[in-house]
Amino acid sequence: MNFLRIYLGESDHCGHEPVYKHIVKLCYEHGLKGVTVLKGVMGFGEKHHVHRVDFLTLSEDLPIVIEVVDENEKIRKLIEEIKKCNFDGLVVYWDVSTLRIKKEAL
Amino acid sequence: MNFLRIYLGESDHCGHEPVYKHIVKLCYEHGLKGVTVLKGVMGFGEKHHVHRVDFLTLSEDLPIVIEVVDENEKIRKLIEEIKKCNFDGLVVYWDVSTLRIKKEAL
Amino acid sequence: MNFLRIYLGESDHCGHEPVYKHIVKLCYEHGLKGVTVLKGVMGFGEKHHVHRVDFLTLSEDLPIVIEVVDENEKIRKLIEEIKKCNFDGLVVYWDVSTLRIKKEAL
Ligand SMILES: Nc1ncnc2c1ncn2[C@@H]1O[C@H](COP(=O)(O)OP(=O)(O)O)[C@@H](O)[C@H]1O
Ligand SMILES: Nc1ncnc2c1ncn2[C@@H]1O[C@H](COP(=O)(O)OP(=O)(O)O)[C@@H](O)[C@H]1O
Ligand SMILES: Nc1ncnc2c1ncn2[C@@H]1O[C@H](COP(=O)(O)OP(=O)(O)O)[C@@H](O)[C@H]1O
Repeated sequence: MNFLRIYLGESDHCGHEPVYKHIVKLCYEHGLKGVTVLKGVMGFGEKHHVHRVDFLTLSEDLPIVIEVVDENEKIRKLIEEIKKCNFDGLVVYWDVSTLRIKKEAL
Repeated sequence: MNFLRIYLGESDHCGHEPVYKHIVKLCYEHGLKGVTVLKGVMGFGEKHHVHRVDFLTLSEDLPIVIEVVDENEKIRKLIEEIKKCNFDGLVVYWDVSTLRIKKEAL
Repeated sequence: MNFLRIYLGESDHCGHEPVYKHIVKLCYEHGLKGVTVLKGVMGFGEKHHVHRVDFLTLSEDLPIVIEVVDENEKIRKLIEEIKKCNFDGLVVYWDVSTLRIKKEAL
C-alpha cells in the first residue's frame, strides 16, 4: 500500500473551486479508499511566502495537507488526475503496511 | 522504530468514551513513548460519508488521526489492544529513524 | 528525498521565541524547500504529561508537529541546527518519493 500526501495552500483554486475540495472530489469519484484533509497553522513553500494564522486577516491561505492511503496503482492514477489541475503543490509518497479495523455487528 | 497512524472518526465510541481518548489512555497505560492526536477538517473513508467542518451543526464527526512513534514490538502489542475496541478505523505503519532532543539542565 | 517530522510542545521556548517559530526561521534562513506546522488536539511524550484542548485555560501547551520535505543532506544539516536549540523534542525521518506540481503560466 502507498501513503500519499499533497501539500498546497488553502486558497489555491482550480476553476471556481478550492483545489483541496477538488482533490477530495476526485478521490470520491475515482473510488479511492478514503482521504483526510489537515490544515496547518504555519508554513512556507516554493515562493518562500510565510503563511500563518493571523487574527487580523480573514484570507490566510494556510497550509493544507491531503492524505490518501490506497494501493500503489490507484495512487499513481490519482496523481495523474491531480496533475491536470493547475496549481502549485508538492506530492510526497512512500510504502506502508495497513490494517483495517472493523466494527463487529453485535 | 515504527511510525503508527490510526484513522477514525471523532464521534466513534468505545463504551461511553470516544475511541480516540480510549486509545490515548491505552498508550499511557501500556507505557508507550508518546502519542499525538490531530483533527482533520474534511475526509471520508469506508462508508464514503464525507465529513467536513460545518458551521451549522455541532456534531461533525471530523477525521481524527492518532500518531505513535515507538519500537516495533510495542507498536505491535498496542495494535492488538486497539483491535479489542469495537470501531471502524484504518491502521497504517512504517519504519522510521528517530532522534530524541534533550533539554540540557543549565 | 527525506521526510522530517519534529514533535514538541507549543510553549517550548528557545530564548524569547517559541521553538516552533525558531525552527521555521531556521528552515527559511537555511534555504530549505518548505515547512509545514500542524497543531494537535491532544498528546503526551517523555514526561507523560497529557496535553489537550481545554476551554478553561489559555496556556494549553498543545502538541506541535513540524514537517519538512527536502534532500537527505539538507535535512541532516537542519537537524544539526535544531539540536543547538535547548528543548525536549522527538525527531523522526524516513525516505520518500516526491513530485512537484507546477502551475502553468496561461
Ligand atoms: N518541502 C516542503 N516541506 C514541507 N511543507 C511544504 C514543502 N513545500 C510546500 N510545503 C507546504 O505547502 C504549502 C504550499 O506550498 P507552496 O505553494 O509551494 O508555498 P508558497 O506559497 O510559499 O509558494 C506551504 O505553505 C507549506 O505549508
Ligand atoms: N484510505 C484512507 N486514506 C485516508 N484517510 C482515510 C482512509 N480511510 C479512512 N480515512 C479517514 O478516517 C476517517 C474515518 O474513516 P471511516 O470510519 O472508514 O469513514 P466513513 O465515515 O466514511 O466510513 C475518514 O473520515 C477519513 O478522514
Ligand atoms: N513517541 C511519540 N509519539 C507520538 N507523539 C509524541 C511522541 N513523543 C512526543 N510526542 C508529541 O510531542 C509532544 C511533546 O513531547 P514531550 O515534550 O516529550 O512531552 P511531555 O510534555 O509529556 O514531556 C507530546 O505532547 C506529543 O504530542
